[in-house]
Amino acid sequence: MYSLEDRLIRKIGKATKSAKPQGSGSLRLGLGDDAALWTPRPGYETIFTCDWFLEGSHFLRDTDPPDSVGWKCLARAVSDAAAMGGQPKCFLLGLALPLSHTGRWLARFLAGLGRAARRFDCRLAGGDTTRRDRILIHIAVLGEVRSGGAVLRSGAKAGDLIFVSGRLGEAEFGLRSLGRGRTPNRRTIPSVRKHLYPAPRLALGRWLAEKRMATSMMDLSDGLSSDLPRLCAASGVGALIDAGKIPLVKAAQSRGLTASSRLALALNGGDDYELLFTVRPGQARRLPPRFEGTPISCVGVITRKRAIEVLRADGGKKNLLPGGWDPFRR
Amino acid sequence: MYSLEDRLIRKIGKATKSAKPQGSGSLRLGLGDDAALWTPRPGYETIFTCDWFLEGSHFLRDTDPPDSVGWKCLARAVSDAAAMGGQPKCFLLGLALPLSHTGRWLARFLAGLGRAARRFDCRLAGGDTTRRDRILIHIAVLGEVRSGGAVLRSGAKAGDLIFVSGRLGEAEFGLRSLGRGRTPNRRTIPSVRKHLYPAPRLALGRWLAEKRMATSMMDLSDGLSSDLPRLCAASGVGALIDAGKIPLVKAAQSRGLTASSRLALALNGGDDYELLFTVRPGQARRLPPRFEGTPISCVGVITRKRAIEVLRADGGKKNLLPGGWDPFRR
Repeated sequence: MYSLEDRLIRKIGKATKSAKPQGSGSLRLGLGDDAALWTPRPGYETIFTCDWFLEGSHFLRDTDPPDSVGWKCLARAVSDAAAMGGQPKCFLLGLALPLSHTGRWLARFLAGLGRAARRFDCRLAGGDTTRRDRILIHIAVLGEVRSGGAVLRSGAKAGDLIFVSGRLGEAEFGLRSLGRGRTPNRRTIPSVRKHLYPAPRLALGRWLAEKRMATSMMDLSDGLSSDLPRLCAASGVGALIDAGKIPLVKAAQSRGLTASSRLALALNGGDDYELLFTVRPGQARRLPPRFEGTPISCVGVITRKRAIEVLRADGGKKNLLPGGWDPFRR
Repeated sequence: MYSLEDRLIRKIGKATKSAKPQGSGSLRLGLGDDAALWTPRPGYETIFTCDWFLEGSHFLRDTDPPDSVGWKCLARAVSDAAAMGGQPKCFLLGLALPLSHTGRWLARFLAGLGRAARRFDCRLAGGDTTRRDRILIHIAVLGEVRSGGAVLRSGAKAGDLIFVSGRLGEAEFGLRSLGRGRTPNRRTIPSVRKHLYPAPRLALGRWLAEKRMATSMMDLSDGLSSDLPRLCAASGVGALIDAGKIPLVKAAQSRGLTASSRLALALNGGDDYELLFTVRPGQARRLPPRFEGTPISCVGVITRKRAIEVLRADGGKKNLLPGGWDPFRR
């Protein structure tokens, strides 16, 4: 009597069920109705964001472990909530699958997705399932942030210092290491792990928002050279980045990559899901050098001049051109 | 300096900008940041729903007018909010396009989407754009409904009368008429218009919820024979439908289709986006025969017996088997 679509929805609900009841805000109605119902908390605004995760563009069907696909599609979407200083609460899963992938592949995908949902404290609220020859994923996230407390891209002022979390280019380096495939258990390599199972900086984002430390913030999904111009454009400012201060992939872990290759990775590598944020100079000393183990690095300063420049080791300046991922570049 | 992706986002924002400020609830931050920010109204719950709209599955790139694709992808998604008795407020657009469609096709698509956004009073809040060889659309809608006032699928009780809005099978008949293509200006035919530019029953859904008339409700997207079993399963009940009472495509408009063909269209045709709802027998007389011009028809009764049956003209009963659209059917 029930269609395969109905049975898939049940399977999805079961695999991603969270045992943990939510204390704040609440999902009154989840899977199985026309829509989900969310009861917002007084004093909070609702964060609303979405992301594609498409076979061939964002992952490879036969190469990427299905549980990584499940983890990463949600990580990528909740990272946008982290970048506002908010907490993701629930999500909708748009999933299009070939019939051949509704069994074992789906089970492993849901295992990774369920693990991510528990880790990020973000429950599956519903979605839409259909059949397709290629795997298409679309995640919409609903989250919350204290009213007036969200950190926008548009708040940076000239003189603010520019910070990033983590080491940039690691995920891209992990992707390339996977391509080479020389290591027996590649998932133990930190950069490969970061590529397959990125950890959005939710706690850091919330901390920066609560302490009102960040004047502007966004997450690094396409690479610093593509994302920093977006933050600067939203704020109507420019930036001067010190190449020597950018936290690179560790030399010991990069199999002999030159420093300049590692810098190129840091500027242009995508999928790091680290935070890029600005802090007033007087506040910067309140920032710890590490937050829950993740390094926090000052990489430059916001300028009045509407240009994004990089200060090189020889003291020269060079315009930073976007070299990160642009899906529409030929 | 800006990527094509950034320029597309600006183009999308411009085309779908609503001139009308929202009086209730508010979209504090829309396009151009990591996420949108929505300020919920006290005393209201948030509706959260999404839908795919994919080339080849839900529309045809070279056949369907681009403005219909834009209109219908949003209509389909807000229909889920109508089915809860709520009001859609804002939406996220997931759009994947071939480079060849980022010009004229996109402009016409956005014109239809913008027109739908204004009609449904549902603003574009953000989204994600990427490049793809086929056109993929995913819409996530955020809406509101008075706390405790949402009409769920699960509230039907034995004895409740079953109602539908509009005439069933019209959209499917419109699709088939388009296929034949014998008419010079096909968009003037009501069934073709309903296929291309469906009108979700937002006002009726809200009225039923406000008056607490409906004990359960959902929208008809896959056809009565597929959707009614879903409502019954959620409510733990069965149904007896009177075939003679189902509102069919008008004979005069169906180019000589037999009554039994029109009944098959009504039972199995998808994309009508009419409302299916149940009402306690004592309340049913408060329902008008038409609501804003749309007929309201009683088509059957909810039963204790866990079966979905159709009463035929000869007095015989027959089990109703799902014949609507199931993407996973081979």
